[in-house]
Amino acid sequence: MRIDGRAGDQLRPITITTDYIKHAEGSVLIEVGDTKVICTATVEDRVPPFMKGQGKGWITAEYSMLPRATQVRNQRESAKGKLGGRTMEIQRLIGRALRSVVELDKIGERTITLDCDVIQADGGTRTTSITGAFVAMAIAINKLVEAKQLAKFPITDFLASVSVGIVGGEPALDLCYVEDSSAKVDMNVVMTGQGKFVEVQGTGEEAPFSRDELDSLLELAESGIQSMIELQRQVLGPIAGRIGGTAHAATVSGK
Amino acid sequence: MRIDGRAGDQLRPITITTDYIKHAEGSVLIEVGDTKVICTATVEDRVPPFMKGQGKGWITAEYSMLPRATQVRNQRESAKGKLGGRTMEIQRLIGRALRSVVELDKIGERTITLDCDVIQADGGTRTTSITGAFVAMAIAINKLVEAKQLAKFPITDFLASVSVGIVGGEPALDLCYVEDSSAKVDMNVVMTGQGKFVEVQGTGEEAPFSRDELDSLLELAESGIQSMIELQRQVLGPIAGRIGGTAHAATVSGK
Amino acid sequence: MRIDGRAGDQLRPITITTDYIKHAEGSVLIEVGDTKVICTATVEDRVPPFMKGQGKGWITAEYSMLPRATQVRNQRESAKGKLGGRTMEIQRLIGRALRSVVELDKIGERTITLDCDVIQADGGTRTTSITGAFVAMAIAINKLVEAKQLAKFPITDFLASVSVGIVGGEPALDLCYVEDSSAKVDMNVVMTGQGKFVEVQGTGEEAPFSRDELDSLLELAESGIQSMIELQRQVLGPIAGRIGGTAHAATVSGK
Amino acid sequence: MRIDGRAGDQLRPITITTDYIKHAEGSVLIEVGDTKVICTATVEDRVPPFMKGQGKGWITAEYSMLPRATQVRNQRESAKGKLGGRTMEIQRLIGRALRSVVELDKIGERTITLDCDVIQADGGTRTTSITGAFVAMAIAINKLVEAKQLAKFPITDFLASVSVGIVGGEPALDLCYVEDSSAKVDMNVVMTGQGKFVEVQGTGEEAPFSRDELDSLLELAESGIQSMIELQRQVLGPIAGRIGGTAHAATVSGK
Amino acid sequence: MRIDGRAGDQLRPITITTDYIKHAEGSVLIEVGDTKVICTATVEDRVPPFMKGQGKGWITAEYSMLPRATQVRNQRESAKGKLGGRTMEIQRLIGRALRSVVELDKIGERTITLDCDVIQADGGTRTTSITGAFVAMAIAINKLVEAKQLAKFPITDFLASVSVGIVGGEPALDLCYVEDSSAKVDMNVVMTGQGKFVEVQGTGEEAPFSRDELDSLLELAESGIQSMIELQRQVLGPIAGRIGGTAHAATVSGK
Amino acid sequence: MRIDGRAGDQLRPITITTDYIKHAEGSVLIEVGDTKVICTATVEDRVPPFMKGQGKGWITAEYSMLPRATQVRNQRESAKGKLGGRTMEIQRLIGRALRSVVELDKIGERTITLDCDVIQADGGTRTTSITGAFVAMAIAINKLVEAKQLAKFPITDFLASVSVGIVGGEPALDLCYVEDSSAKVDMNVVMTGQGKFVEVQGTGEEAPFSRDELDSLLELAESGIQSMIELQRQVLGPIAGRIGGTAHAATVSGK
Repeated sequence: MRIDGRAGDQLRPITITTDYIKHAEGSVLIEVGDTKVICTATVEDRVPPFMKGQGKGWITAEYSMLPRATQVRNQRESAKGKLGGRTMEIQRLIGRALRSVVELDKIGERTITLDCDVIQADGGTRTTSITGAFVAMAIAINKLVEAKQLAKFPITDFLASVSVGIVGGEPALDLCYVEDSSAKVDMNVVMTGQGKFVEVQGTGEEAPFSRDELDSLLELAESGIQSMIELQRQVLGPIAGRIGGTAHAATVSGK
Repeated sequence: MRIDGRAGDQLRPITITTDYIKHAEGSVLIEVGDTKVICTATVEDRVPPFMKGQGKGWITAEYSMLPRATQVRNQRESAKGKLGGRTMEIQRLIGRALRSVVELDKIGERTITLDCDVIQADGGTRTTSITGAFVAMAIAINKLVEAKQLAKFPITDFLASVSVGIVGGEPALDLCYVEDSSAKVDMNVVMTGQGKFVEVQGTGEEAPFSRDELDSLLELAESGIQSMIELQRQVLGPIAGRIGGTAHAATVSGK
Repeated sequence: MRIDGRAGDQLRPITITTDYIKHAEGSVLIEVGDTKVICTATVEDRVPPFMKGQGKGWITAEYSMLPRATQVRNQRESAKGKLGGRTMEIQRLIGRALRSVVELDKIGERTITLDCDVIQADGGTRTTSITGAFVAMAIAINKLVEAKQLAKFPITDFLASVSVGIVGGEPALDLCYVEDSSAKVDMNVVMTGQGKFVEVQGTGEEAPFSRDELDSLLELAESGIQSMIELQRQVLGPIAGRIGGTAHAATVSGK
Repeated sequence: MRIDGRAGDQLRPITITTDYIKHAEGSVLIEVGDTKVICTATVEDRVPPFMKGQGKGWITAEYSMLPRATQVRNQRESAKGKLGGRTMEIQRLIGRALRSVVELDKIGERTITLDCDVIQADGGTRTTSITGAFVAMAIAINKLVEAKQLAKFPITDFLASVSVGIVGGEPALDLCYVEDSSAKVDMNVVMTGQGKFVEVQGTGEEAPFSRDELDSLLELAESGIQSMIELQRQVLGPIAGRIGGTAHAATVSGK
Repeated sequence: MRIDGRAGDQLRPITITTDYIKHAEGSVLIEVGDTKVICTATVEDRVPPFMKGQGKGWITAEYSMLPRATQVRNQRESAKGKLGGRTMEIQRLIGRALRSVVELDKIGERTITLDCDVIQADGGTRTTSITGAFVAMAIAINKLVEAKQLAKFPITDFLASVSVGIVGGEPALDLCYVEDSSAKVDMNVVMTGQGKFVEVQGTGEEAPFSRDELDSLLELAESGIQSMIELQRQVLGPIAGRIGGTAHAATVSGK
Repeated sequence: MRIDGRAGDQLRPITITTDYIKHAEGSVLIEVGDTKVICTATVEDRVPPFMKGQGKGWITAEYSMLPRATQVRNQRESAKGKLGGRTMEIQRLIGRALRSVVELDKIGERTITLDCDVIQADGGTRTTSITGAFVAMAIAINKLVEAKQLAKFPITDFLASVSVGIVGGEPALDLCYVEDSSAKVDMNVVMTGQGKFVEVQGTGEEAPFSRDELDSLLELAESGIQSMIELQRQVLGPIAGRIGGTAHAATVSGK
């Protein structure tokens, strides 16, 4: 049994509150256990210089933690004058993941920026950001579709993410902070509703891991992610029906 | 009548939710109308270099807005690599204000950092930060007192802040964003429970203002601040009774 | 009696030397007691990006101190790689103040930059900068008018600034550094020739102040500022006659 | 057949030149096809602040490319004034990977810094850096052992890395730049001599990938890495015999 | 004849006003033609980290120009967030030059910082800074000697600097800005009172120069520098007598 | 006799390997003793903003050292977030020197960037960079000529550089690191094939030097540089014949 009484393959309670920030085109407060992230989607009618004139759009992400999201206060990166390596790595991951399920050539020369601000952290902030940002992005894109600014709903599949790891010798799903700190192997997985991998990032800094361990972690991740996608579908309501690949996803999550 | 139907001397609805962030020694979510700020108080057993060895403590503040707290997305200062002038000005103001009601020589060589993170902005973010940060600070300091780390409750008075301005030719209390943008005169006032001024910052960039206008704005501010302090007292419950100067404040707010 | 023998309502000796720097469109060396500031006005035929295409001009200020302007050497902000909060606050104040007396829509798409460089500091550097920068700006604008680049002299009123404070329990005008360091209340006031307030910035970090104290400080400030404006008028000579609001100002300064 | 005529499971020619830079405690020039990286190991008798007093050492890495290592010249990060996200991600990866095969509590309070400078790039610069840095590190550590500064040879296993991907629909080992640019799936794998995973980083930004595809890529990576470790063993000569886990590795590479 | 009517071997008028800034241990305003530089010497009882514990002192310099010292306004380096190459080059030159005539092991673990701030520029700002900074330094060091903090006057020789160049085909001494801009060869020379070279920096970017040209420039520089040293001696009065190498210098300047 | 057995007027062995980096338009690895520098020339069809529209090109240089090029590891300037003064000084010198032998109005609106990356340092890195960069530049420019993008070969003369100094009381050519560290006088000289000076930078920080010493150093430098140019001519082969001023240079090098 795990530190918080969960079974190895059990997610923490998740809630997704939509339209949490009134100014944003899409926004959610996502809570996975005690991890809380505000995700907002901003739509702007321009693309970065390297994409100009291609008739395509861009999706990018920024990630930050409030200084006191953590047990010990972290210095602000704005005060340090630069982004840390961890922040850059995470926001590159979030952006890459979201782009994998959107047809960028169907959104016009627009940039959608997903801001993921962790207001309270208890493990899994990057995976929670991805799961929440997907919903915020879907809401924002749906507004473009309803305003007839897009001809077609360009999201091809659902997308969610979860962490898995080997804790106390056992594979475990959705690590909280205490588990994450003591995990021998730590893996973040991003998958689509159709059950395909978008990102697999496993690290065995403390102890290299075997192929069998890798396999069991991937299985745990898949089941957790499909449950999360089920919740995304509920929260998105009618918007969910417009997302490509739903039929397949339903099959997968039904198993 | 004002844009949101309020009378000139009427505050927006205010709510203060305490213990909003589990890791911080003190924390609140303060909402003044649609302006929402998370204020956390962090207590650390060290002081900045310039204060070492004096047997005194330090209180400081940091202020930030989430990128999409505003109508149009703001670039993160961490991404820009430096703090803007507005941010620095505001966090200096918040720190100065809070220090004015704490006996720094009674808190030991500790630093209390008040982080004020605006998650949604609709005018008055700096004044709302001060009002909320006072409560977060009182909670954090109270824990030190209860843990017998401090011999005496070192907060000498209540402290709150509000904006006032001349909008459409009329003095108005607690400006929302639309009012603030069109105000000819804009003033932020910080006062104590005893009705004394800690900061008066009035600007007539658009139109210099007369002494009579200044006087009417100060009166509006005083009444608004005393109402806010009444709410702080309710929210703080038994802690409120430990704050110096309460008796005087009661008299003032009773007029 | 004050540390330097002045009465409470007495300014330090002031001299303003015009055309101090040969390259600038307008320049002064202003000395208020031992505080010495070089103010230059630079006129450039462009505006910042956020103002392009509006047919209006912009006025902005930069402020700096030489490293050894002060008793103890200060590290250069260029060597630190960033501007400090105090510098940003001051240069925002100077720019705002000067803009309040210029019709920006009458100066074309030009930027006037006021550089205020403190070469020796003895209190009141920000207020001295404002008083000096006004003269440098008037000289520069007058050249534009004489060169027929402007149809109308666009300065609507005189503008000067002074510090006041409560020192040793007594209100005092134009604080020198020693007074400033020990003042319980410190206030910077910017006023026009017509006696209207442009900025009122009072801080009682050491001790909150009462309404009566505020009132007496405002009165001291007003009398000091009108004397300074009288000097500005003498120094500017014929240019002074072109500044709007002069008649009113004369009345005020005559009381 | 691939663009450069290799079979899908074929590595590019690899050469490792040891003692390439005379000043460093360990150094190699590693060439994998046209990708050339200088790896140096620096041993310093101090650890970063967060590790002081624990009696343990630290291993860290820095990565950079010469501006003209690439087809189009890249601006130097020193001129930009900050490290990019890609650089930070890569150097975090290299450091993490190397730490996984060293007993940090056996190297004393020392820091070993692996500098990986790409002088010519043709795909796989991060994996090549890891493979080369391992050799430079082993040489440097061996000197410590020979100088009797360490009681025990603290490297527990060999370590190498390779990229794999799906190019033109087929799994391919050790992608060159042209392949990497057009790969639908891109994965970097770091493994030990015993055939355990240290890092698995797979990205399907262009197209999510299935479990079957993942499995075939992992197999390709394993075979490539074991060949690389065989070369490391030859290059290291007698030092190789001191590395833990060699027996197992031999078994693995013998299959 | 030159643009300002001087002969080829004629310096511009020079004045050195000592004790120009009241707070500094040594200070001058040096004016060479229309080039005006404030030089202050600050003495601090500490040395940079790399010199600690050697029982020696350090002399360093910083150089800056006010934004409007020049015909066209320059952006402040503090606003840019970094020092430019030209500034670094100049301040390294000034520091190196001054160190060459001071016995660092005779000044204790102190740092003397020479701040050279150009308030008006008309060519030769770096050479003027050196000539002025030497006087400010001598005054500051003399105070240490008079306060018996130093056992011996540690300045071994006078030091001054001048620019020379080939303008309109003719060698010319002490170039003003217009000459400097059109010079084919530009050389800055720093010499001691004894007529020895401390720095020779000649650049023929526009046109490489011959050995004969080099020789004639060096001769011009020597004569100009000895005249400047004569002025330094007058300005320093009794302090001049304490500077080593004076006798030799007198001989040289007498030729 | 010198530390490495050379005569005072003897260069270290020099080799120049052309086309060292496959992506660059021109590249060399230049080795002068144990000093090794990779020089690449990049041609881009644009000029910096300050040169736009003049129909001229620009030549610039960047210089860097790998962290472990030196005995003790140097922190990367990219990690520090800024270029040091030494780096800026050197890259300004290299750029200036190369521009002196190219007719910028004959290369079109192009920028040629010379990247000089020191992979191993043993004194004379800046002079070695100039000598190597000249060859890389000539190769790159020759490609433009052969591709008929330039009407005329625009390099007017050969260019090389060497250090000289007074070591152990004797003038010495081409100082290695140990000599450089103990030299009383240190001078870098850049000359053309025609024997004209482009840069003379002599520093006597440790001990001012006499005119006689200067003269002997210049002679040593000239002979060393002409030998280097002879090598450049051999390495460049047929390209050498296109470089202006060759006839003169031959005469000079023949003496």
